[in-house]
Order: sequence, then C-alpha cells, then structure tokens
Amino acid sequence: MSIGEFELIRRFFTRPPRRFDVVQSVGDDCALLRPQTGKCLAITMDTLVEGVHFMAGTNPENLGHKALAVSLSDLAAMGATPAWVTLALTLPDPDERWLNDFSKGFATLADQYGVELVGGDTTRGPLSITVHAIGFVGEEGALRRSAACWGDGIYLTGELGLAGLGLEILLGKSTQNVPEAVAKLERPQPRVNAGISLAGLANACIDVSDGLAADLGHILHASGVGATLDWTALPLPSPVRQYIDMGGDRWMPLRAGDDYEICFTVAAEREIELVSKMGEFGCSCVRIGHIDQQMGLRLRQGGMVIDLAEIGYQHFPVVD
Amino acid sequence: MSIGEFELIRRFFTRPPRRFDVVQSVGDDCALLRPQTGKCLAITMDTLVEGVHFMAGTNPENLGHKALAVSLSDLAAMGATPAWVTLALTLPDPDERWLNDFSKGFATLADQYGVELVGGDTTRGPLSITVHAIGFVGEEGALRRSAACWGDGIYLTGELGLAGLGLEILLGKSTQNVPEAVAKLERPQPRVNAGISLAGLANACIDVSDGLAADLGHILHASGVGATLDWTALPLPSPVRQYIDMGGDRWMPLRAGDDYEICFTVAAEREIELVSKMGEFGCSCVRIGHIDQQMGLRLRQGGMVIDLAEIGYQHFPVVD
Repeated sequence: MSIGEFELIRRFFTRPPRRFDVVQSVGDDCALLRPQTGKCLAITMDTLVEGVHFMAGTNPENLGHKALAVSLSDLAAMGATPAWVTLALTLPDPDERWLNDFSKGFATLADQYGVELVGGDTTRGPLSITVHAIGFVGEEGALRRSAACWGDGIYLTGELGLAGLGLEILLGKSTQNVPEAVAKLERPQPRVNAGISLAGLANACIDVSDGLAADLGHILHASGVGATLDWTALPLPSPVRQYIDMGGDRWMPLRAGDDYEICFTVAAEREIELVSKMGEFGCSCVRIGHIDQQMGLRLRQGGMVIDLAEIGYQHFPVVD
Repeated sequence: MSIGEFELIRRFFTRPPRRFDVVQSVGDDCALLRPQTGKCLAITMDTLVEGVHFMAGTNPENLGHKALAVSLSDLAAMGATPAWVTLALTLPDPDERWLNDFSKGFATLADQYGVELVGGDTTRGPLSITVHAIGFVGEEGALRRSAACWGDGIYLTGELGLAGLGLEILLGKSTQNVPEAVAKLERPQPRVNAGISLAGLANACIDVSDGLAADLGHILHASGVGATLDWTALPLPSPVRQYIDMGGDRWMPLRAGDDYEICFTVAAEREIELVSKMGEFGCSCVRIGHIDQQMGLRLRQGGMVIDLAEIGYQHFPVVD
C-alpha cells in the first residue's frame, strides 16, 4: 500500500471540530488555540516504542487508546482538565486496517473527555507513538509532587497490581486466566474526573505509571517527607491476591507499573471533604497510608513495619 | 554506559529557568505554564527519524539545532513568537558525548530566541526526535495558508536551493565543494524574527520544508488561487547556479526541501509597508512572483511561461 501522508491524515485523523476554542486544527503550519483566561496550561508528552513499551502485534485499537490514556493520566495527576492533543506517529509501513483501528481507539477515548486532536506529524520509521497533551488548571489548585505535608492521608484510586498481573500473564510468567488484568494493562482508564475533582483539595498527586513504590517515592523525595503504607488497606483485587498466594512476587503490586491510577495526599482536616467529593471520581478511592516526618517509605504488615527502600523504591530505571 | 533516565534529564536537559511564565518545568507529571492573555497559542510537533530525515552519524550538535529549528520555523510561518518547547528523545543507547553535543545545539538555539525547554520524555529505541513547540500570536494577525488573495506579491526570505545542494553533496551526486550548502541543510536558521514581523501584515505564509513548489502549492490550494513565479527573481546563490550550469537538475531549487525559509504573500497596497519592515527580518527578502486568479503554479522564464504542475508540485509524498 502506498497511502500518502496527507491522505492518511485526512482519512484517519481528520474529524469534525469538537471544541469552540480551536481556531485552526490540522492543515496549517501550526494549530491555533484559544487558552482559558486566568488558567495555567498543564502540558505533557509521552512516547511509546514498540518492543519497549508494548509488544509487537499489540491490538492497534488498544494501542490508540493507551497512547492517549497515558497523557490524560499525567494531566489528571496535575488536576488539569484535558483540552487538546497532538500525535506524532512513526510507522514502518502504513497499513489501512491498523490505522483504522488505532485511530478508532484514540478517537473514542478523546471523545469520552471532549479532547480534540489538533495536529501532529506522520513519519516513516520503526513503530513509535508520541502524544502531547494540553489541559487547563488554576495555578493555585494545581497538584504538585512537592506539596505533601506531614499528617496527610495517602489515597489511591481504583485497584493496585492488576496491570502488573496482566504483564506477568502476557510474558507467560503467570498461568492465571484473568482477561481483566490484560485489559487493564492494554486499556488503562485515565482518572480524568478524579484528577479534576482533586484540584484545590489534594496536596500532592502523581499517577502510578512506574509502580506505586517508585511513584509515591517521587512525591516523598520532592516534598522532603516520608510515608507509611498499610498492607491491609491496599486495594488488591482477588486475582492479584491469588497471584501472591500461588507464590508470585508479593511486592509485585508495589513495584509493577502501568496501573495508571492516581495516588494523592490530603490534609487530615480535609479528609471529610474528600469523602463527600468521591461521587465525582467515577471510580473507587481508598486511604492506603499516611505521610510521616521520618524520611523513607515503610509498609505496615501485621505487627511489622518493613522499610521499602529494600525492595528498590528509589531505583531509578535506565532510560525507558 | 548505563545512565539513568532521571540522571540523563538532570545532566543534559535541566537548566536554570529562563522565563517568568514557567510555573513548573521538568520534574512533575506536567509542566505548568502561564499563557499570554488575549493571544492564541500556536502549536506544532515534528519528528526527525534517523535514516529518514537525517543520516546515521550526523553531527549531534547540528541535529539538536535542527530538531528545534524545524519547529521554530513552523511557528514563524504562523507569525508566532516562540515560548516553550518539549522534547521526546528516543535513543538506542545513551552516549554521554552525543547527549552533551545534542543538548548544546538544542539549548544554543533555544537561548537565541528566549525559548525554554519545559518537559518531554526519554525512551529507549531506534534514534528519533520529536519536538513540540508553543508560541503566541494574535488571532487576527496569525498567518494562515488559506489567506492568499489575487494580486498579492509573493515573497521569500533568504536564498533558495542551498539545502538541496547540500543534500546532493552529501549523497555524492554533486562534487561541488560548498560547506555552506551542507551547513544550510544541517543547521537551518528558522526565520523567527521575520515571522513575528509579518503577523498582521502578510496574508498567507508557509515555511519551505518540502520545497518551494510543493509548499507554495499548499498556499494556492488552501486559498483557491494560482500563482506565477519569475525565474530571474528567485534568490539562487552562486553555488546553486553553478550546480545548474554544470548540468544539475534545473528544477532542484523549486523541488528541494529543507531550506526553512518562509514564503509569504502581501497585498499590493501594503508592499511599501513591508519594505520598511524588512530591517526587522534579520535576513534578506525578495519578491519572487504574484498571486493570479488562474489556478495552478507557473514559472516565467525568458519569454516562456511553464506550467509547474508538470514538475510535480502537487505530488503528495508518501509518509515521510
């Protein structure tokens, strides 16, 4: 097949306008956009590379969904409302069916949150997808990693470890039959509404892309505080409990990435306000621990307190 | 070498803040930025892939420069003032010397225009560079491809065909010794100041990345007009004239991309105003033709008028 760049963009990535604040979309040197007065822009950019972030042969509709989901998740973790995205798609050889499915996954998630694809680039090369997303958030309400305070409760949306289990299954390291674990890995739901509701309410926030221990570790490092998690409070779904009971790595739920839940801290005196807001979240949310003055990350399990530095929460991964 | 992602970002891409409107730079889920009140955002995203857009072994300092230059050139073509950029860098294996030189080329050009690198992503994979850039422009003053009018003069900054000659030299198709041609290909100067000066003055504008005939063709198509160029007015530098005199493709200057000059149209009654503004451009600028009612792109050469459709100005390249 020899589909041209312009034809490719027209057929798969040009849709009727969705937003009144897009003055010029795809089709000029730049997109032209009207930002919201009085708000900050929150911007984020993420790349997914075949063979590194996803396996060759991954369902393209899921891939289109996930490529956008990881960026919307970053916006959610700042408390921002998503608005506009651009897509840089590098393809070895344009395949119409692949493009059709990829763009469908991307567009369906974009529509769910009123997000408009306003530009990007298509190039020939090894399969790789870069998404840039822009959202709005009030400067005062933005959720920063550095804002956790001693005494804050630590909360997590959704469930923990399901995407990690999905990866174990895809790699053949687990023989469990858990389609929802693979689905969580391949089609994560960014916690957009939870993030928006938390702007101005939570102190610190991060999305769980590299594993809860590593990501919470970033909050602790940036805020100059420590934390203690409560094992019994961690929202481990039954397949993950079974995985551990069957001899799987018990630290997997803390170490595995790709859950794309958000982890945040709330001042003790505002925890009642949080509970009343949870209806807006579109997902469950539980208290999994608290912020300490003592540096480091600890886990309370039974009568014991385990120092999680030992399982590598400060591990800085090589470029990935 | 096994440099970590965070160490890599800290060492090569974290610098003292440059702009007062950056609330949060590298180091959180998103960057936080304060847009200018009353202005539109102009945004653009471009990918350079090794083996497609540049050859393996390209000087990394030049590559860092060019990766940013192509995005600043797109902003210039909208009349926008550049502000913030993000960089998604995919590397097979992090090499400190390469990173040092690449980041130096990138930062030097960024500093030249007061642009700040505020975020991005580093991943492992085949060498590829995606840059996203954001600038400001008044909604009324933005330079759109669709705004060319019958009677407009057509102008071009700088010179034509030098980057194309550079490519012929690198490919061994020309034996001329013209270091400035290779330099133009590898370190194009985006016409930032010219673009800013043209906002509100020019009608249509585009940057010459795919070749003058193709890029001017986009203006004509979007505006529903035609044009006639004057061969004697084209700013061909002597090495390009020599290339043609020595039997090289005489259409090369019209067909070759990568000059990153800007081509724009100005209403006849404002051409005097343009001349008085040219001092702000930081480069030369010449009138190369005019917009016609008759569709198509023509070239006047001697007593003849040649229809340029025949040299493929409407050729839509395959994904590149």
